[in-house]
Amino acid sequence: MIVQKFGLADVSFERSPGQDADVFTANVIDQRHGGPVTIGYGRYAPNQSIDVKLAVDDVMLVLEGKLWVDTKAGTLTAGPGEIIYMPKGETVTIRSQAQEAVTAYVTYPHWQVAEGVSTAS
Amino acid sequence: MIVQKFGLADVSFERSPGQDADVFTANVIDQRHGGPVTIGYGRYAPNQSIDVKLAVDDVMLVLEGKLWVDTKAGTLTAGPGEIIYMPKGETVTIRSQAQEAVTAYVTYPHWQVAEGVSTAS
Repeated sequence: MIVQKFGLADVSFERSPGQDADVFTANVIDQRHGGPVTIGYGRYAPNQSIDVKLAVDDVMLVLEGKLWVDTKAGTLTAGPGEIIYMPKGETVTIRSQAQEAVTAYVTYPHWQVAEGVSTAS
Repeated sequence: MIVQKFGLADVSFERSPGQDADVFTANVIDQRHGGPVTIGYGRYAPNQSIDVKLAVDDVMLVLEGKLWVDTKAGTLTAGPGEIIYMPKGETVTIRSQAQEAVTAYVTYPHWQVAEGVSTAS
């Protein structure tokens, strides 16, 4: 595999699997590419909420807007440049408020494999 | 391990090991925490250049400024919100120009372990 560059302009978002909120993901690197990590971008429409049981270690970096993450130890908020680290096995609720939010994420191992998600791509 | 939030305000940068350029790293999660990935922030002063042989898979996201990454297949540039994925085994030169650059990174596995770096922290 070679060194590669990605940006939001390169991606097409799909609805995040297993729920019907307006929350979208777009992998740019995943199990199809042979490496150990999945890399992607996420998009949360305003006033959305998803419950997630972490099947993988998930590093989420907020690029635009703000997100609220409810954890067993309280609620964390993150804005541009801030990182939420969600270890495997944790359960969280990720929420947007009045503003859309855009994220980048890295998971180890591949979240689609761990969650048994199949995609068209 | 619990869900945690990090930002640039939380970190203290150290000179990137094995070179004397004004390039600094600050791990927020690493081998000390028991998970599989290292997470951190990087800072490149203007007009710096470092040569890196990737001992791990390294995902670098540019938060501020712009970076140039010379690879065997050409030069990539990345600005805010853009990601450079550097697979293990590749050799790159990462350069800043007139402007300072700030990055976030995620590595699998832990880069300090793979590079045999010991830190004071």
